[in-house]
Amino acid sequence: MTTHFPADSVGLVTPQRVDFTQPLLLACERTLDAYTLMFETYGTLNADKSNAILICHALSGHHHAAGYHSENDKKAGWWDSCIGPNKAIDTNQFFVVALNNLGGCHGSTGPASFNPATGRLYGADFPLMTVKDWVQSQVRLMDYLGIDCWAAVIGGSLGGMQVLQWTVDFPQRLRSAVIIASAPKLSAQNIAFNEVARQSILSDPDFYGGHYYEQDTYPKRGLILARMVGHITYLSDDAMKQKFGRDLKTGKFLYGYDVEFQVESYLRHQGEVFSKNFDANTYLLMTKALDYFDPAREYNDDLQQALKSANCRFLVISFTTDWRFSPQRSQEIVNALIAQGKQVAYADIDAPQGHDSFLFPIPRYVTLLKNFLTSVQATVKGTHHAS
Amino acid sequence: MTTHFPADSVGLVTPQRVDFTQPLLLACERTLDAYTLMFETYGTLNADKSNAILICHALSGHHHAAGYHSENDKKAGWWDSCIGPNKAIDTNQFFVVALNNLGGCHGSTGPASFNPATGRLYGADFPLMTVKDWVQSQVRLMDYLGIDCWAAVIGGSLGGMQVLQWTVDFPQRLRSAVIIASAPKLSAQNIAFNEVARQSILSDPDFYGGHYYEQDTYPKRGLILARMVGHITYLSDDAMKQKFGRDLKTGKFLYGYDVEFQVESYLRHQGEVFSKNFDANTYLLMTKALDYFDPAREYNDDLQQALKSANCRFLVISFTTDWRFSPQRSQEIVNALIAQGKQVAYADIDAPQGHDSFLFPIPRYVTLLKNFLTSVQATVKGTHHAS
Repeated sequence: MTTHFPADSVGLVTPQRVDFTQPLLLACERTLDAYTLMFETYGTLNADKSNAILICHALSGHHHAAGYHSENDKKAGWWDSCIGPNKAIDTNQFFVVALNNLGGCHGSTGPASFNPATGRLYGADFPLMTVKDWVQSQVRLMDYLGIDCWAAVIGGSLGGMQVLQWTVDFPQRLRSAVIIASAPKLSAQNIAFNEVARQSILSDPDFYGGHYYEQDTYPKRGLILARMVGHITYLSDDAMKQKFGRDLKTGKFLYGYDVEFQVESYLRHQGEVFSKNFDANTYLLMTKALDYFDPAREYNDDLQQALKSANCRFLVISFTTDWRFSPQRSQEIVNALIAQGKQVAYADIDAPQGHDSFLFPIPRYVTLLKNFLTSVQATVKGTHHAS
Repeated sequence: MTTHFPADSVGLVTPQRVDFTQPLLLACERTLDAYTLMFETYGTLNADKSNAILICHALSGHHHAAGYHSENDKKAGWWDSCIGPNKAIDTNQFFVVALNNLGGCHGSTGPASFNPATGRLYGADFPLMTVKDWVQSQVRLMDYLGIDCWAAVIGGSLGGMQVLQWTVDFPQRLRSAVIIASAPKLSAQNIAFNEVARQSILSDPDFYGGHYYEQDTYPKRGLILARMVGHITYLSDDAMKQKFGRDLKTGKFLYGYDVEFQVESYLRHQGEVFSKNFDANTYLLMTKALDYFDPAREYNDDLQQALKSANCRFLVISFTTDWRFSPQRSQEIVNALIAQGKQVAYADIDAPQGHDSFLFPIPRYVTLLKNFLTSVQATVKGTHHAS
């Protein structure tokens, strides 16, 4: 059946959904009485359930992290480069769980879901989420799957923030944490870029205060702008130079506002495609979750104190040309972990792709991740044999 | 009369206008049959007209570079920190000319001007301008003022690009060039940020294809967004950290889309103020002039060849935390000048304010500029005595 998929692909996958009825109290002090999570799994859970890995997604991610949804599906999941048989996150060894976070727009309960309290779609009434809330909901999914302890929780960017929060809030429930291209909190500049993205959407006349679903429209212009500005921060100056330089679309200046430079064409196209596939309310919510993330805040702004109870091995990875979350931001995490005597490995990977590097199968990065996970699993097997 | 103005201020100034009737052929191959330039002058032109300095403005600048327009004027001209009696650009020594460039929105002919060809305001019909066009129009102003050779042409950012173009196109008409926080051409990332700003304006329903004047409205939302994204690139990450950090406006998270962080408040305010004082068509035009600037383009992309005929002393200044036009970009200019055996001084000034540094009276920067201009003037006096 799946012979035409690449040999190192997990092949056909089927999204699953689980409905939770136990209320979830959120950081904003509101409660979700019931909610749905969409997820996918790859590989097989072993008998002692010690080989489970959780994948946390970034701003525009979702549960479809690897494989294909149909025989004719041209595009694999968003992290297919790293998840599959013999890949960095080896599905021959691990049982991998990927979910769509609450507030998302790919099947989990979010702004476009039905709100039982009002009888209409949530829209702007959907509560704002925090990374902490997501981790709480991920624990519920973990319990539902009967997993006591993750072999690893892994994520890049906003995903890495969820990993860090796991180590703070549920230190006994993961054996390792892989934090990629992330930061312990946003800088003022990070927040500023998010604010521009938000204002693009909020000020779009088609936003209708977040209830655009009922108007049968959506803030397309705003979403395009938000994605364009975001996209610039995902790429390095170098990557843009290599990719586009100052190349002109028609070879000469047009002296008008149509596309002149290739980079303009690329950005407009990326914005356009994204605006058709992503929900504006979810985009807003994701940027706020980023802004709010600051695990040290509950510990007198002391990241070391926040990480004091962490009880797992850490792998922290940054990329040389990432200016959204520069290597220095990863090093803040590493330094706090070292100061607390935690077991941490850190690598700054030389890569030209900027923040987006974490999505690419860069050899040194992939090898590092694979070896780390193998080592984590060897340790637990050793422990099990000894017990 | 002006005793309440600071002692080192040029005091009250009166804008002047000059109407040109000789057609100006533009880079876009269209012609402006007649046009007006607004300008101001500070200090006194000496007998041999050897002490004139031209100030070229950046994206949002204009002719009002120093002094005050009325007794009650609270705000001085945009470069008052550097222009005045005994200041870096010393009006006791020099006759300083500042103009509003063509396409501007402060009195010179631009998109909001009457278009004699159509009987309506230009709006989107105003031709796109290039740095080269501006320099041509500045030569006309120079001739009108009876000045044969500038003692110096000075500008920061887009202003510095005009200075560079002067040295390429009219090497015999300036004795020195001061290029501050500039670049020999935009990078793909620079263009990308400009494109986001443009799309913000172009996609605003109140833009009306550039003819919003006739609708008695303007693309306020778009202009706010354009300024917000621009503003982020003017400040350094460090400057934002020092200025705002993660400070909250109300001291706690609100879990909504009102202002939470101080940096959001600042950006929204800056955008709001700017949108009331600047014309959207001019903003669009200015970003395109930036994109088009590339003096090496006419010389087989060889900056050295472009600068071969340059015949003046150069001072090039960059700022350590400027990431819009980083020190490396200034060094490209310096290296080309050195390779051509030109007389060039270069300084990378340690300053936390990012690209905006050029507007601040940073002691080392101000002293450097003042000494350079004094030296330029000493040389010409020497020459005159010898002749």
